[in-house]
Amino acid sequence: MTTRQDGERRRGRRPGGTDTKAALLAAAREVFIEQGYDGATVRAIARRAGVDAAMVNHWFGGKEALFAQAVLQLPFNPQELIANLLEGDPDSVGERIVRTFLTTWDAQDGGVFAALIRSVASHDQVANALRDFFIKNVFSQLASVVSVDGRAELRANLVASQMIGLGMVRYVAEFEPLARTDIDTLVKAIGPTLQRYLNGPID
Amino acid sequence: MTTRQDGERRRGRRPGGTDTKAALLAAAREVFIEQGYDGATVRAIARRAGVDAAMVNHWFGGKEALFAQAVLQLPFNPQELIANLLEGDPDSVGERIVRTFLTTWDAQDGGVFAALIRSVASHDQVANALRDFFIKNVFSQLASVVSVDGRAELRANLVASQMIGLGMVRYVAEFEPLARTDIDTLVKAIGPTLQRYLNGPID
Repeated sequence: MTTRQDGERRRGRRPGGTDTKAALLAAAREVFIEQGYDGATVRAIARRAGVDAAMVNHWFGGKEALFAQAVLQLPFNPQELIANLLEGDPDSVGERIVRTFLTTWDAQDGGVFAALIRSVASHDQVANALRDFFIKNVFSQLASVVSVDGRAELRANLVASQMIGLGMVRYVAEFEPLARTDIDTLVKAIGPTLQRYLNGPID
Repeated sequence: MTTRQDGERRRGRRPGGTDTKAALLAAAREVFIEQGYDGATVRAIARRAGVDAAMVNHWFGGKEALFAQAVLQLPFNPQELIANLLEGDPDSVGERIVRTFLTTWDAQDGGVFAALIRSVASHDQVANALRDFFIKNVFSQLASVVSVDGRAELRANLVASQMIGLGMVRYVAEFEPLARTDIDTLVKAIGPTLQRYLNGPID
């Protein structure tokens, strides 16, 4: 438990530099896992870190991005990434999702994806927080390209299932040849799957 | 907690036959799921089974092989399962794979699948063992329904990616609504994906 006195003392040590950023990341991870994505407030995270709540916006731009970095430890901002790939022809968004996913994760050590999966599989709280995060931030963004047929959420889940499985096979289990197949080939193979899940016939 | 006295008493009942093997499998499954792959020791498993730790090597050759049988191969014999679903119309094998996968895993506690994924994400040996197992046993069986176009292994990997991701979303991350969507709906949604991966156009 951090008392106000402790908070004040810590705040004195962290005038707003990279030290503050690290403190916020550590505090955010704790609070998100304790309270879930919905329950965790920016104010509570800042208090735990002993810094002003304005520092969250200053360093991360908001709660979503802080979650992505602190809990998912994503090396990119998922909202920016998704916003980018949803621009352009809606009929090729499936291919763009696969290409963006593979380009982004290929640039990382496979261990980063494995760590994410391990967190989800090990901690109910992380899985819950991830689910809330996806529903609030990722799936809602997908809505603009998803068929309006009362199955938009299921469609988003289906996309998630293929992409999570692709990551598992390529970066964690490393099945051959998929772990070393070139991106263009996988875009052609998997893009149509996502395209159908998003706005094709699923029943 | 099993006391030594209790262990001795149980040991008296199991002189080292198939009864011992069954007891070890059951104990291993429990201990691996409770403690994870690293946390579970051969000694703890043998103690839970009420047999001598040497029986693990005698019957399974070691912890990894015991894990493979107790965790990966339970709760079904995957080779039998795959042989069964490959019988029948090759044009609906995609739907049969989804239905069999969901029926089989829905009958289990979701924790069984989570334990499998956690082990794969945590341990190179388990991921390697799983990969070897898939290549030797599963993918080779799929060959009878896969298009002969020099991409049979990639096609099998693509099937694996969708099915592993389906398991992740339904049993581990538990995204809604997919975690509670009825099997028929998912068979219709995902069956065509597998069918195309197996013998449709992928480039």
